[in-house]
Amino acid sequence: MSSHPFDTALKLQALAAGRYAGATSPAYWNMVGPFGGATAATVLAAVLQHPDRLGDPLSITVNYAGALAQGPFEVQIHPARTNRSTQHWTAAIVQQDEQGQPVIATTATLITAARRETWSLSDLPMPGVPRPDEVRAMPYGQGMAWLENYELRPVSGFIPQTWDGRQHDHSVTQLWMRDHPPRPLDFCSLLALSDIFYPRVWLKRATRVPAGTVSITTYFHAGGKELKATGSGYLLGQARGQEFRNGFFDQSAQLWDEAGTLLCTSHQIVYYKE
Amino acid sequence: MSSHPFDTALKLQALAAGRYAGATSPAYWNMVGPFGGATAATVLAAVLQHPDRLGDPLSITVNYAGALAQGPFEVQIHPARTNRSTQHWTAAIVQQDEQGQPVIATTATLITAARRETWSLSDLPMPGVPRPDEVRAMPYGQGMAWLENYELRPVSGFIPQTWDGRQHDHSVTQLWMRDHPPRPLDFCSLLALSDIFYPRVWLKRATRVPAGTVSITTYFHAGGKELKATGSGYLLGQARGQEFRNGFFDQSAQLWDEAGTLLCTSHQIVYYKE
Repeated sequence: MSSHPFDTALKLQALAAGRYAGATSPAYWNMVGPFGGATAATVLAAVLQHPDRLGDPLSITVNYAGALAQGPFEVQIHPARTNRSTQHWTAAIVQQDEQGQPVIATTATLITAARRETWSLSDLPMPGVPRPDEVRAMPYGQGMAWLENYELRPVSGFIPQTWDGRQHDHSVTQLWMRDHPPRPLDFCSLLALSDIFYPRVWLKRATRVPAGTVSITTYFHAGGKELKATGSGYLLGQARGQEFRNGFFDQSAQLWDEAGTLLCTSHQIVYYKE
Repeated sequence: MSSHPFDTALKLQALAAGRYAGATSPAYWNMVGPFGGATAATVLAAVLQHPDRLGDPLSITVNYAGALAQGPFEVQIHPARTNRSTQHWTAAIVQQDEQGQPVIATTATLITAARRETWSLSDLPMPGVPRPDEVRAMPYGQGMAWLENYELRPVSGFIPQTWDGRQHDHSVTQLWMRDHPPRPLDFCSLLALSDIFYPRVWLKRATRVPAGTVSITTYFHAGGKELKATGSGYLLGQARGQEFRNGFFDQSAQLWDEAGTLLCTSHQIVYYKE
């Protein structure tokens, strides 16, 4: 049994059909709740261990309706419809409030699919960047527990070193990354990595305003073969903002492995305070 | 009362709290079901007329679990959580099968938000293209009913005129578009327009393989002010594929108004055969 903190964080206990008990992990704690990528991965982990699950993850949307409080939660998943080669899931993470009433912290939809080899082609080649060993790793932690579990080697678009409010000319970040300690990539860890980028508004404005993901959607292009080929190697992640407007911005991201295979694409809408 | 076919298609009758009766519209029929953009807009229309709805649409994800059959359906929506300035909705479209059993055709999640004016900035300027009156309108119809309701003026990345299987060097389409006859833009029609692009795999391969959207996510950057400023003018839509792999590709899209305001960004994962 793996003792990697990521596996510990995603540990679920089956309670009944489609109901799984879990608990927040101190190792993946962010500012006011768990790292959103770990929360998304927890929902996916529940679907992956459901006995009726068909195929591999194709698409997941996770909506962060409220911060998870430290402690136990329940993941509730339901196969809304099963087709010949795709399966549609609805999901929620529920906690009890102080009066013992259930509160929905997270809603989600997922699609799994039995995929076959077809004509395939990438229309988005990996950008030319220095190799992982040519760029410096960020110091771990930075005061947030979850960052201790990732090795991040920024290539461009660093988090601002001075919060001087000077407007940046673009909102693109590129970085090499992997779990720390290294861990063979799977669907859940890939999903978590797709949410690793710090808020684009910080880069654009050089101002550390409060910001948090409201909804994330990740599309999986990798199957088991590509995950295995990637192993515990680095991924190149790239993220950019598109529009910052009246309290929310959107972000598009792509994650390639070292061989240049596009493993997933991801999008999110993020709240920011002004 | 508007007699525009779009308003007719989106007409819903409240049955009970969170339950609305509707019916598929022949005017928006595609190949084996309604135009997906119209289906997504129908879910949004239900949320917009719910008496407890807070604020304007921020994000919507619609999963096409199965084709809607011609005829009546029910939209079921539920406010999963209401915060101070955001509200999280879950939704489904349900039909009865031949045995009278309920079948889920569509699942969805939506977020509405009460937005305030903040620091704002676009990081994705509208590409330089000819004005709408400088490019020719496509002939209506093309054999699919729903296309009769749109005026499309392609700028680049036309649908292939010859299906010769010659691989195209990119998968980008740009086009001016609006409802036909013209209709003042609202959240529902904007959402429908975000799904207007023909499958990227057709452009890339010049091969008309079966293809259909599995899941779409649209983020609204426009509020009421931007919708009003756009009126019944044209939108510039741009779409590109990122990865085509083993039966599915993803597409990213952006929609600007004529003044260059980015109204929404959209992403989808699309099934293709072979």
